[in-house]
Amino acid sequence: MDISKIRINKAKRKKHRKPGMPPGTLVHVGEKKVEKVRIRVMDYDDSGLSENELDSIEDTFPYRDKSSVTWINIDGLHVVDNIQKIGSHFEIHPLVLEDILNTGHRPKMEDNEDYIYIVLKMLYYQPDNNNLEVEQISIILGENYVITFQEREGDVFNPVRERIRTGKIRTLKRKSDYLAYALVDAVVDNYFLILERMGESIEDLEEELLQDPGQRTLKQIYSLKNKMLLIRKSIWPLREAISALERGDSPLIRESTHIYLNDVYDHTIQVIDTMETYRDMVSGMLDTYLSIVSNRMNEIMKVLTIIATIFIPLTFIAGIYGMNFQYMPELKSHYGYFAVWTVMIAIAVVMVLFFKRKKWL
Amino acid sequence: MDISKIRINKAKRKKHRKPGMPPGTLVHVGEKKVEKVRIRVMDYDDSGLSENELDSIEDTFPYRDKSSVTWINIDGLHVVDNIQKIGSHFEIHPLVLEDILNTGHRPKMEDNEDYIYIVLKMLYYQPDNNNLEVEQISIILGENYVITFQEREGDVFNPVRERIRTGKIRTLKRKSDYLAYALVDAVVDNYFLILERMGESIEDLEEELLQDPGQRTLKQIYSLKNKMLLIRKSIWPLREAISALERGDSPLIRESTHIYLNDVYDHTIQVIDTMETYRDMVSGMLDTYLSIVSNRMNEIMKVLTIIATIFIPLTFIAGIYGMNFQYMPELKSHYGYFAVWTVMIAIAVVMVLFFKRKKWL
Amino acid sequence: MDISKIRINKAKRKKHRKPGMPPGTLVHVGEKKVEKVRIRVMDYDDSGLSENELDSIEDTFPYRDKSSVTWINIDGLHVVDNIQKIGSHFEIHPLVLEDILNTGHRPKMEDNEDYIYIVLKMLYYQPDNNNLEVEQISIILGENYVITFQEREGDVFNPVRERIRTGKIRTLKRKSDYLAYALVDAVVDNYFLILERMGESIEDLEEELLQDPGQRTLKQIYSLKNKMLLIRKSIWPLREAISALERGDSPLIRESTHIYLNDVYDHTIQVIDTMETYRDMVSGMLDTYLSIVSNRMNEIMKVLTIIATIFIPLTFIAGIYGMNFQYMPELKSHYGYFAVWTVMIAIAVVMVLFFKRKKWL
Amino acid sequence: MDISKIRINKAKRKKHRKPGMPPGTLVHVGEKKVEKVRIRVMDYDDSGLSENELDSIEDTFPYRDKSSVTWINIDGLHVVDNIQKIGSHFEIHPLVLEDILNTGHRPKMEDNEDYIYIVLKMLYYQPDNNNLEVEQISIILGENYVITFQEREGDVFNPVRERIRTGKIRTLKRKSDYLAYALVDAVVDNYFLILERMGESIEDLEEELLQDPGQRTLKQIYSLKNKMLLIRKSIWPLREAISALERGDSPLIRESTHIYLNDVYDHTIQVIDTMETYRDMVSGMLDTYLSIVSNRMNEIMKVLTIIATIFIPLTFIAGIYGMNFQYMPELKSHYGYFAVWTVMIAIAVVMVLFFKRKKWL
Amino acid sequence: MDISKIRINKAKRKKHRKPGMPPGTLVHVGEKKVEKVRIRVMDYDDSGLSENELDSIEDTFPYRDKSSVTWINIDGLHVVDNIQKIGSHFEIHPLVLEDILNTGHRPKMEDNEDYIYIVLKMLYYQPDNNNLEVEQISIILGENYVITFQEREGDVFNPVRERIRTGKIRTLKRKSDYLAYALVDAVVDNYFLILERMGESIEDLEEELLQDPGQRTLKQIYSLKNKMLLIRKSIWPLREAISALERGDSPLIRESTHIYLNDVYDHTIQVIDTMETYRDMVSGMLDTYLSIVSNRMNEIMKVLTIIATIFIPLTFIAGIYGMNFQYMPELKSHYGYFAVWTVMIAIAVVMVLFFKRKKWL
Repeated sequence: MDISKIRINKAKRKKHRKPGMPPGTLVHVGEKKVEKVRIRVMDYDDSGLSENELDSIEDTFPYRDKSSVTWINIDGLHVVDNIQKIGSHFEIHPLVLEDILNTGHRPKMEDNEDYIYIVLKMLYYQPDNNNLEVEQISIILGENYVITFQEREGDVFNPVRERIRTGKIRTLKRKSDYLAYALVDAVVDNYFLILERMGESIEDLEEELLQDPGQRTLKQIYSLKNKMLLIRKSIWPLREAISALERGDSPLIRESTHIYLNDVYDHTIQVIDTMETYRDMVSGMLDTYLSIVSNRMNEIMKVLTIIATIFIPLTFIAGIYGMNFQYMPELKSHYGYFAVWTVMIAIAVVMVLFFKRKKWL
Repeated sequence: MDISKIRINKAKRKKHRKPGMPPGTLVHVGEKKVEKVRIRVMDYDDSGLSENELDSIEDTFPYRDKSSVTWINIDGLHVVDNIQKIGSHFEIHPLVLEDILNTGHRPKMEDNEDYIYIVLKMLYYQPDNNNLEVEQISIILGENYVITFQEREGDVFNPVRERIRTGKIRTLKRKSDYLAYALVDAVVDNYFLILERMGESIEDLEEELLQDPGQRTLKQIYSLKNKMLLIRKSIWPLREAISALERGDSPLIRESTHIYLNDVYDHTIQVIDTMETYRDMVSGMLDTYLSIVSNRMNEIMKVLTIIATIFIPLTFIAGIYGMNFQYMPELKSHYGYFAVWTVMIAIAVVMVLFFKRKKWL
Repeated sequence: MDISKIRINKAKRKKHRKPGMPPGTLVHVGEKKVEKVRIRVMDYDDSGLSENELDSIEDTFPYRDKSSVTWINIDGLHVVDNIQKIGSHFEIHPLVLEDILNTGHRPKMEDNEDYIYIVLKMLYYQPDNNNLEVEQISIILGENYVITFQEREGDVFNPVRERIRTGKIRTLKRKSDYLAYALVDAVVDNYFLILERMGESIEDLEEELLQDPGQRTLKQIYSLKNKMLLIRKSIWPLREAISALERGDSPLIRESTHIYLNDVYDHTIQVIDTMETYRDMVSGMLDTYLSIVSNRMNEIMKVLTIIATIFIPLTFIAGIYGMNFQYMPELKSHYGYFAVWTVMIAIAVVMVLFFKRKKWL
Repeated sequence: MDISKIRINKAKRKKHRKPGMPPGTLVHVGEKKVEKVRIRVMDYDDSGLSENELDSIEDTFPYRDKSSVTWINIDGLHVVDNIQKIGSHFEIHPLVLEDILNTGHRPKMEDNEDYIYIVLKMLYYQPDNNNLEVEQISIILGENYVITFQEREGDVFNPVRERIRTGKIRTLKRKSDYLAYALVDAVVDNYFLILERMGESIEDLEEELLQDPGQRTLKQIYSLKNKMLLIRKSIWPLREAISALERGDSPLIRESTHIYLNDVYDHTIQVIDTMETYRDMVSGMLDTYLSIVSNRMNEIMKVLTIIATIFIPLTFIAGIYGMNFQYMPELKSHYGYFAVWTVMIAIAVVMVLFFKRKKWL
Repeated sequence: MDISKIRINKAKRKKHRKPGMPPGTLVHVGEKKVEKVRIRVMDYDDSGLSENELDSIEDTFPYRDKSSVTWINIDGLHVVDNIQKIGSHFEIHPLVLEDILNTGHRPKMEDNEDYIYIVLKMLYYQPDNNNLEVEQISIILGENYVITFQEREGDVFNPVRERIRTGKIRTLKRKSDYLAYALVDAVVDNYFLILERMGESIEDLEEELLQDPGQRTLKQIYSLKNKMLLIRKSIWPLREAISALERGDSPLIRESTHIYLNDVYDHTIQVIDTMETYRDMVSGMLDTYLSIVSNRMNEIMKVLTIIATIFIPLTFIAGIYGMNFQYMPELKSHYGYFAVWTVMIAIAVVMVLFFKRKKWL
């Protein structure tokens, strides 16, 4: 949770857009996150599953008209040519292709009659540098295929792959729409993990805050607040997108899938609820931090005041009898020294009592 | 209201979810709160009541098709097998069963045609450690049965049991929907108790705040604020759930029950209102705390300033005549010492008057 | 505006509810505010008015079916039996009777076909202890009767009584609905008085704030803020209730009364508007208070700094020449003493100029 | 922008309402702002214009049924009798007359079939005492007449009068509804002027804030904030009122006038937008003010700390060698004095370097 | 990011409106930003493109009825006569012309049957003085022409011109509505650039904030906050305007253009989202700034307290033995001096340990 990390995003946020280009121009907007583009295909129906890794994008073309369910997963968006080709073969609108390549998009759902286009945000927590990364995932749901575009190879879809392999999804009734649901569900499930991490960070920080808050605590609260803003921006629009998917009357979404979409919608609401609660907690922590700091300063001030207030008059008295006037009657008195001590102690005692009564001590 | 308690929740909040599992997989998400699962059945109609504690979940199966009203209450969710069996016998959708086991759910109402599924949050105030616990209660309302799932044995439903035993609910016209209403009403009634506790805490804290605020006060305000967030998260969605239940046109909810649902809806609104007022009060307390602390510091500063400002110049004068220069004319004067005293007193008086005029004294 | 008053409410807020009781159980929830229940009846039509004070609740029964307009006013809710009897004679639903007795209810309007049930909050400003009291008023509007339930005898309905006596309301066209309107209007009018009081308190506090703010000011702002919360909770839901009354299509509300309901709705909006403005003002006052206090501290700090900064170096110089070293050449110089004074004055002047330039002086 | 002005409103806000009076009772609620009521009439059609100042209210009666457009303007509301008479002749509902006289009303629009009633708030900026005054303007729009009620003679309608005289409004197609629009437009236009004034005040204050903020700045921010609240209360409801006028289907509003109403609606939105932006700016100024003040205090504290921290140890050393012990070996050393100076300078240099490294200097 | 720049806007904001003028009066409200009005025309269809710069406004008249698509761009609004003439020839409503000339308008869309009127705000970032300028752009979309009005010559439309020249827009199917879309899109694209600038400023400021915050940082946060308010005011209403354009059923917007409008709507939402996130971040920075400053002051106070608290008692002791009493037994002791040193060191050590335990050191 070092501050230097916040700057990593700087390079990324640049070249956010390509103003002045005609709409539908395909340009990859974002960072290149993998070296090599990886194209994986899973094709299954009741009878079986074939799983392949393809070398060229053209190899995906035959899957378009197969009656079995096909999942084409493309990791890496920087080879624009791939997107262009698959887009024109599967008849995807150029504006949709542009959105796939523009990784700064917010979550949304678009029903384009022949296919449904879904944009999601995947959140990765980097344990080594305590950073939060956002990756854009695009899903094209067609009649009997699902195409997913990821910025880099992630492990979030592995459980879905596993379930396909073990046959749990490969049943007659579960078509491409169920597969798309499973992928969205995997992403939403992942948010719970991220929020759990946030929850732990909040708890640790809370403890630090109430035990021994310092400059570091403040910077961490600040960093947490900004992470929350990032998460919020990624998750909040998802609610509307999934709700539109659920309420929509696209023939691509079969009746039986609605209950699952309803379930994932419920989870999204739950994620948003938790996130909002965390945001309130982090806000509360900043207020409390300020209170604690000013409290502590208060206490320190009291000690200073008391020490100073007691000794300043005493030192003055000592100064008086350190003067070198030739005629100072007290100096000659045999008991002068002891009298001065008595006076000083009396003053000190009165002051301590005064502070006690004022509850400053 | 010790801070150490806040940490108790830590273990619980972990393992919040099981990402990657297929939907409908039954896994208990939450803490195991009781050792032994307890299954109790109350079965009644106009003619009488039979009340039993069952040993195995299969014993509940015959109640499904009895025409009398049956209430099956299951305390303890950790034996997933129980939930599985009762779910498949009563034909409850696997996604609903999954929600029953996932204790991190928010309150909701789901009309699944053959049955209505209601999720509620029960709040427990632990008097020994001043902590607030949240327990999830799931209610399945069928044609002539109600199944409730609790994380542990609670006493919140005891008054309902009592009313069944005394026959108040056992009338011809009151079917399973009235029973479900009675259970929801018992939970909502309980919120009033919790809010009363909160109200008392706020009043005590308010008094402490205006009398003698300290570090402890601040921590208590902080803890109260977080409790409020927890309560809010538990209660707020309930409003929508009950409203959906009331407005819904499920044949399971009889016409005569609507007025009761309306009543419990009213109570929920009242609970939310009170809670929001309390939240505003706690927020106001934090502001006031900060004001009081800075006020007090102000007062302390004034005393320091006055003491220091009066004595620093006087000490300087004493210092002057403590110098050892061989030629210092004043030292030889017979009245020098008294003159210095006179000057000092004059300076002190002028300063005090100045401070008085500035209203610092 | 003493803090001790805030505690008065403590006893009241307790026993807010009776969890576990069956719905419709009649229990008085709230404080017993009068010793004796008072039952007053006004019965009028075009031809005349009869005004009676009744001894027993049964005496009200004959008025139910009289064609003239009857207003039955009951002060005091603690004799549950009364409510029970009148409720069953006038065929009021037990849940409504329960709400009448539960004085913690929020304002609402319920159309129960045969009658309309309205809950209002009356606010009383106690001039002796500067406190704000809330009383619940329930109105039952039937075909040709209006029953009002008050916690204690209030004077807010006196003007309505007067208008009935002087015949202003006793005309052919004005039925029970107009009477109910007149009662609601009287309560809303009373809010203006309360808000005027609040406005005056705010103005007085504003003056105190800008002239001479202290600990007392802070406590008063805090108290005002909480009063505002109380008023808000009492008035805000009223808007919706009156709007429902106005828009509703109950046959009990005659066409000609709608314009009056619209008028009282307008007034409610105006009350809410004013209240929200006051709330903003009180919030602004707290911010300003904090600013003024930190401002003042700033000024005090400056004086301290200047005095200390000027005299600390001078005292150090005096200390130097107060040392008793045997060999200190300056001490022997004839002009040493004057040279030291010159140096000191020069230092002081330079410092004062420095502070002037920094605008600290 | 003196604080004393805020109190001017005190007298006015009193007697806000007349609780207990029957609805429709005509009482002037507000201040008497002019001595003499002034009644002016402009009556025009295509053929010409007659402009008169009338002595008695009865002289307005004949205009009611003239087919030409008549604008009756009444300055001064304190002669209730006038309002009563004109109201009964033009058949205006008593509740509307009551609202005309109650100058505390919020802006609204009421379609009463035969006429439309519009309430507006006029804002006046008093340049001599920097105060903001609110005046209520009521407009009654009938088939072929417009009656306006002002609290006092204002100059805001003069441009409209001028346009009538120069014939710009006197065309066949522009009836009474266009005149009403022109009057509303004149009031909304005036808000722009007020907001410009506010904008200038904000800019001046902004400059003062960033250059040399003091107690005065704070009081001005506070005063500006409260003025904003006042403006907001006056303008915000207008939006809804004009929108209702535009969307309404009253036959009094001709089709051709809708585009003008749309235009004035646009302006209202623009006014509200600007006002909200100003409110945010003023809020931001308060935050900034607090920051600047605490910043400055920080700087002062640093100087104090540095001076004190350097000289306190040095003075201590001087104090040591000012002690009168008979046996103090250093005192006898020939170089003791110079050694002490060396040590002192060394300490001071080390400290300055320490502070430099800490960036406190 | 100098404060002096904020004042530049002052002159502009004046003469915001022309109160009292009849609606539809054409007056240029705003600054004169260019010397000479420039009129450029691009006229194209499938067969080719003609591009001209016209000398007089009358030369644009023939384009009105040409079947090819014509884009007339007018830079400079101060020659009202031009607007008047083109308005009357193209039959644009006077109120629309008034809005074109009033540069203080908020973004909106108006469907006037024969043409659609769109108001946009162009934002320019001045790199030389770090200032943000707002320019109003009006677009009139007719059957086969588009007229744009700019306050001065900007380069934001150059990419669109380039695309027309290279033929990308010159196809049969793309009519005037596509051209209007392309212009709106160019403006929205430009917002991304502005927000990127803001993002960079925020990042730089964030770094400065966490490294070494000072008075300058505060002023920059303040300036950023106000810029955000300006951007918000310019962009926020655009959302509604574009949405109205997309949902509207004007025959001027062809079916095929809807997908493009949907795309630009998406971008607008994305811009607003980003802006809101930035606003939250800037707000968070102010809070953090305050925390850091009070933290730092805390640290400084601790050093002062420790130094003072340690040396004040020691100096007092030195003062004691600097007194000149004739009878002070300790002075005569041979080890007195060393004893005093011992006592002093002991006191200092005890104090340091005390501070360590209090965690102040």
